[in-house]
Amino acid sequence: MFEFDLTASQGRARAGIFHTPHGDLETPVFAPVGTQATVKTLTPAQVMELGATLVLANTYHLYLRPGDELVSELGGLHEFMQWRSPILTDSGGFQVFSLAKTRKIDDEGVTFKSHIDGSTHRFTPEKSIRIQENLGADIIMAFDECSDPNDPGYTRVAMERTHSWADRCLAAKRREDQALFGIIQGGIDPELRTVSAQFISSRPFPGIAIGGLSVGETKDEMQAMLDVVTPLLPADKPRYLMGVGTPEDVIDGVKRGVDIFDCVLPTRLARHNAAFSPGGRMNLMNASFAHDQHPIDESCQCYTCRTFSRAYLRHLIVAKEMLAGSLLSIHNLYTMVNLMKEIRLSIRDGSFKEKIPTWMERWHGNADRSKIIVSE
Amino acid sequence: MFEFDLTASQGRARAGIFHTPHGDLETPVFAPVGTQATVKTLTPAQVMELGATLVLANTYHLYLRPGDELVSELGGLHEFMQWRSPILTDSGGFQVFSLAKTRKIDDEGVTFKSHIDGSTHRFTPEKSIRIQENLGADIIMAFDECSDPNDPGYTRVAMERTHSWADRCLAAKRREDQALFGIIQGGIDPELRTVSAQFISSRPFPGIAIGGLSVGETKDEMQAMLDVVTPLLPADKPRYLMGVGTPEDVIDGVKRGVDIFDCVLPTRLARHNAAFSPGGRMNLMNASFAHDQHPIDESCQCYTCRTFSRAYLRHLIVAKEMLAGSLLSIHNLYTMVNLMKEIRLSIRDGSFKEKIPTWMERWHGNADRSKIIVSE
Repeated sequence: MFEFDLTASQGRARAGIFHTPHGDLETPVFAPVGTQATVKTLTPAQVMELGATLVLANTYHLYLRPGDELVSELGGLHEFMQWRSPILTDSGGFQVFSLAKTRKIDDEGVTFKSHIDGSTHRFTPEKSIRIQENLGADIIMAFDECSDPNDPGYTRVAMERTHSWADRCLAAKRREDQALFGIIQGGIDPELRTVSAQFISSRPFPGIAIGGLSVGETKDEMQAMLDVVTPLLPADKPRYLMGVGTPEDVIDGVKRGVDIFDCVLPTRLARHNAAFSPGGRMNLMNASFAHDQHPIDESCQCYTCRTFSRAYLRHLIVAKEMLAGSLLSIHNLYTMVNLMKEIRLSIRDGSFKEKIPTWMERWHGNADRSKIIVSE
Repeated sequence: MFEFDLTASQGRARAGIFHTPHGDLETPVFAPVGTQATVKTLTPAQVMELGATLVLANTYHLYLRPGDELVSELGGLHEFMQWRSPILTDSGGFQVFSLAKTRKIDDEGVTFKSHIDGSTHRFTPEKSIRIQENLGADIIMAFDECSDPNDPGYTRVAMERTHSWADRCLAAKRREDQALFGIIQGGIDPELRTVSAQFISSRPFPGIAIGGLSVGETKDEMQAMLDVVTPLLPADKPRYLMGVGTPEDVIDGVKRGVDIFDCVLPTRLARHNAAFSPGGRMNLMNASFAHDQHPIDESCQCYTCRTFSRAYLRHLIVAKEMLAGSLLSIHNLYTMVNLMKEIRLSIRDGSFKEKIPTWMERWHGNADRSKIIVSE
């Protein structure tokens, strides 16, 4: 359980299998986000059909609504949302910092007010673990503090607190059927990132997450931090780059040795009428698509592209039909999931590096990083 | 083409097969409503999976958006919305009377303002047929005038105009691959209904619709009108009761010799968090379902009931997740479609009449007629 078998590598890029209680997870893998125990607008049957193997759910949201104890009483998240493959939950930390109305951080934990009803709550490392044990995901996260990358002093404090909380999470954890991942922080400071990578690697986590990226730093800064961190990590544990990202980001991440990704981008873009496409991000509401009989992407094999014209998708959007969001979500998620599949195959057959320019050219223009919103 | 084979009957209830260019339609049949070329919140794959064989689309809506000429250019409604089984379009008349901002009726046609942007348009019988020929449904409707059942003078005028327009529709029709149904009006006046049934039956329509019911009259009045009308109709043409209805209404209609039904009720209820259930209409937002691990209906074989608990559905509703509307639409449509299937089988094996009390008891309480809204 929770062994990670490396099956192939090319440079720092790795293909592997992570063994979980809900099946073997082939990596590199992209996890669609199901914030409130649903990948927005899609049934689990649709999410499975498009090829997803791992989904992420948000601890902060599910703690507030419907409540982790209720989810536990109903048999846990897999049973509740009827997702039979692996699930990953975050620690709730990031959402508390980004969504809660007010928050007060101390060395023990964070007190915050719900964005739903203003009620006061407190998360500690121990509480986060207890909530995640109630939710019952296969992969759970240590409670961490994500700092503003442009505030060096705070970044050091947050990193040190993250390390102390990591040990408290390890101590608090009771369930044997969940893999607790430690989280590396350190902003965009190579020295702090080095310290954090070494600290987290020294602890008995079965997997290691890289947090505090895709939160406002530049693309170059993110890549520089990955170049600092991943060479320091043990080869036999999966690495998870949290909240990333676009097709290009994911290719960049795999190249630097990352195994697991998640991002709301595909489903969020979909609800804003946008689709990944080889020519760049496509806004299907555009009047130029009114008579367009082509699918979003001629070469895409998703249900949406196999079935519907751009003209029909535009009609659904203009007519405010919710089906538009579902069909674009299917396409955008399929694009990411299928890209990961191509990446896995290429690492196995040794063609990963030579395929990078083709992928980059194909997916260039699909990422406007300023518009990436990390939480739904 | 468009022959109607009666395969079994019991009393006035009939089972048959209506032959259309997109396949044989087993009757009695219930058509989900796909107003804007989509059954709201569902993919055509989901609509097909739940067992639907016929869908209705609205001429008024599609004329305004995206435009019938665009639909024609894109290959017609089947191709546009990717529904491969039979489609029925209404004439647009009812929506003009119920939705348009202002309307002025004369003997030639109706001038109205769009509910979308206030622009002025005019429908005539010829225009309605031309639009429906552009849309390309298998079954199309004559342009009619639906009167207030409680205004006898106007009801007579509207019926006479409907008859004159019926002949103009027959004369205007050009496509051979569409079945034009005439529509009987006459409000709740047995004499007018008799006149109208005889008039429409005398014309070469391959099918006959009963309009002007489920528009504010009582259930007893509707049944009384069916008792007047259906005995006057030729046996070899399918009969379509427009905009009806609830499970009980449909059973009552079949008993009185109706073959085709449509109603927005299943999908509209779904978007208001309500599900058909054996105990009556169930509001899934109710707090009593928070911990409820049962499906909506233990005996239901729809995807929603085979998969999800009431507690999960309630969570989706409270969390404002659109998936709730999709899952409840699947259940409500399946309930209607499956009831029709049971009805067809029972007419064939001679058990229809003896099963009526069981069905009526099972589905009693699912109809609050005052809340039935005929158009989405």
